[in-house]
Amino acid sequence: MEAVTAFAPATVSNVACGFDVLGFALHEPGDEVTAHWNDAGCVRIDAIANDEGRLPRDAAKNTAGVAAIALLRRLGERRGVTLSIRKGLPLSSGLGGSAASAVAAVVAVDGLTRAGQSLDTLLACAFEGERDGAGSAHADNIAPSLYGGFVLVRRADPVDIVRLPVPASLTAVVVHPELEIETAKARALLGDTVALHDAIRQWANLGAFVDALHRGDLALLSRSLEDRIAEPRRAALVPGFAAIKRAAADAGALGASLSGSGPSMFALCDGDAAADRVAAAMTEAVRTHIGGIPQTYVSPIAQVGARVVVGGVGGVGGLKASSGSTPHV
Amino acid sequence: MEAVTAFAPATVSNVACGFDVLGFALHEPGDEVTAHWNDAGCVRIDAIANDEGRLPRDAAKNTAGVAAIALLRRLGERRGVTLSIRKGLPLSSGLGGSAASAVAAVVAVDGLTRAGQSLDTLLACAFEGERDGAGSAHADNIAPSLYGGFVLVRRADPVDIVRLPVPASLTAVVVHPELEIETAKARALLGDTVALHDAIRQWANLGAFVDALHRGDLALLSRSLEDRIAEPRRAALVPGFAAIKRAAADAGALGASLSGSGPSMFALCDGDAAADRVAAAMTEAVRTHIGGIPQTYVSPIAQVGARVVVGGVGGVGGLKASSGSTPHV
Repeated sequence: MEAVTAFAPATVSNVACGFDVLGFALHEPGDEVTAHWNDAGCVRIDAIANDEGRLPRDAAKNTAGVAAIALLRRLGERRGVTLSIRKGLPLSSGLGGSAASAVAAVVAVDGLTRAGQSLDTLLACAFEGERDGAGSAHADNIAPSLYGGFVLVRRADPVDIVRLPVPASLTAVVVHPELEIETAKARALLGDTVALHDAIRQWANLGAFVDALHRGDLALLSRSLEDRIAEPRRAALVPGFAAIKRAAADAGALGASLSGSGPSMFALCDGDAAADRVAAAMTEAVRTHIGGIPQTYVSPIAQVGARVVVGGVGGVGGLKASSGSTPHV
Repeated sequence: MEAVTAFAPATVSNVACGFDVLGFALHEPGDEVTAHWNDAGCVRIDAIANDEGRLPRDAAKNTAGVAAIALLRRLGERRGVTLSIRKGLPLSSGLGGSAASAVAAVVAVDGLTRAGQSLDTLLACAFEGERDGAGSAHADNIAPSLYGGFVLVRRADPVDIVRLPVPASLTAVVVHPELEIETAKARALLGDTVALHDAIRQWANLGAFVDALHRGDLALLSRSLEDRIAEPRRAALVPGFAAIKRAAADAGALGASLSGSGPSMFALCDGDAAADRVAAAMTEAVRTHIGGIPQTYVSPIAQVGARVVVGGVGGVGGLKASSGSTPHV
């Protein structure tokens, strides 16, 4: 039976200074979606692994399902497709799990149909999938999961994406504590308005951050990793957040903040050795302040995003699978 | 009598997407300040040309005077300095007039004292001058007037400045209508808060704009020249603003908006020919909607900012005077 499996990586969105518009991709973890033809003439989901039964099996209510439907409709494809989803990402972790499933689904279906659609088209379909399947869409997770690297979303709809350069030594640390935060609840904390002086500081930092990526100026990048918008309002959702962030800074991180709406936290570091030290310090601080068993990842910024890993005729844009992340405990 | 004269250029701040943090320098017009020693042991202003008698002659209340005092105090200089100011910039035009006077003053005094202070030190003194002399300071005018080029002010105090690259073909048009807007009044229109979705759009645009400068991507630059913060609230201060902006777009501008708090308007264009067309169209639209005699300038982005033009031992940072603007009527 013809089948295509695609992998889409976890992503860190917001990145302190880029609330709702900036994200980057990790090598791992990620979600896998396998697509094969069915005779039912519609999109079905036959299995979801590692979700503890919590995600909807109804394709019309599942981000991967809706994204696949959006792409098939755009292609005028009348054949049905069955999806199998393997969650590598913990649910509600702030690492772009629903985005990764939507992205993996469109890449798998694109491979199965041999449609070879542009990344922008796949992005639009994945965006539709997350918006209608999960209730809200985060292009700052979808875009880096699909494209890899650092991505700035100038506009989500219609899509206007800016792929930013990645300094070679930049390494990410992500710690996921045993804690769940609902995106909707984290969103509600933000309110509808922000102080003008905070907004000004935020765009000054984002502008400087983009410049720092272009120049590889990690000192400027470090100064720019400041969140005046989301972090002050959401930090209370993570017990000991200030101490965990301080542990990252003391261990040499360029900066640290919440990943997306949390509870995962990320740090950016200059090189592997610094990242290992920061990972150890953050993990220890999470154990102290939150308890449980945190999951910690150390990964360079993944230059390659989603791709076909089994089957298909070559993957998205000719990109091949890459690896390099170091999963820690 | 030993005397040093410095020139500091007009600047366009805000630049649509960078409210309060982004600005660029024109070649002309600008203000000139001449500094010479006096025996009074304090800073005096003996003449101001072209201000119609409206600027304070009391050095402690004049931006140039306060800036000069700040620098002399920092140098531990006990001798007195007399300043003569020649305004090349129209008052309250939105072209950074008080910033230009403060910048020209510190550069002239730096030349007279042969102190050779860093640009960052001169910036801090000029900032103090405008803040205490004019009541509010606009580092996004001061910094590009001093440094030249496009400057992003990540933080004003303590100063953290990012000098951005300037695409070679980028040309600015500035039209100053016969109309005055008080900065304080324009500021009051902004209020203290902004809608979160507008703020998000603003920093997405500024991030994209910085990327566009680095890549020389004028299409992206054009899409990013959008102001969700100040322009919607201030446009009503300029009769016919929407029509003038549309005239710029129709004539081929990459984008147009208010310069600072107005009433001057700027456009950015790809090349001299486009700029000349845009200048003619905007000038005509200003005549139609506002009347009077507008002043129109076409200028590449000035890579060189303030500098000693008469006397001294070499100018700021070894920079020499340059020219290239084309004043139009």
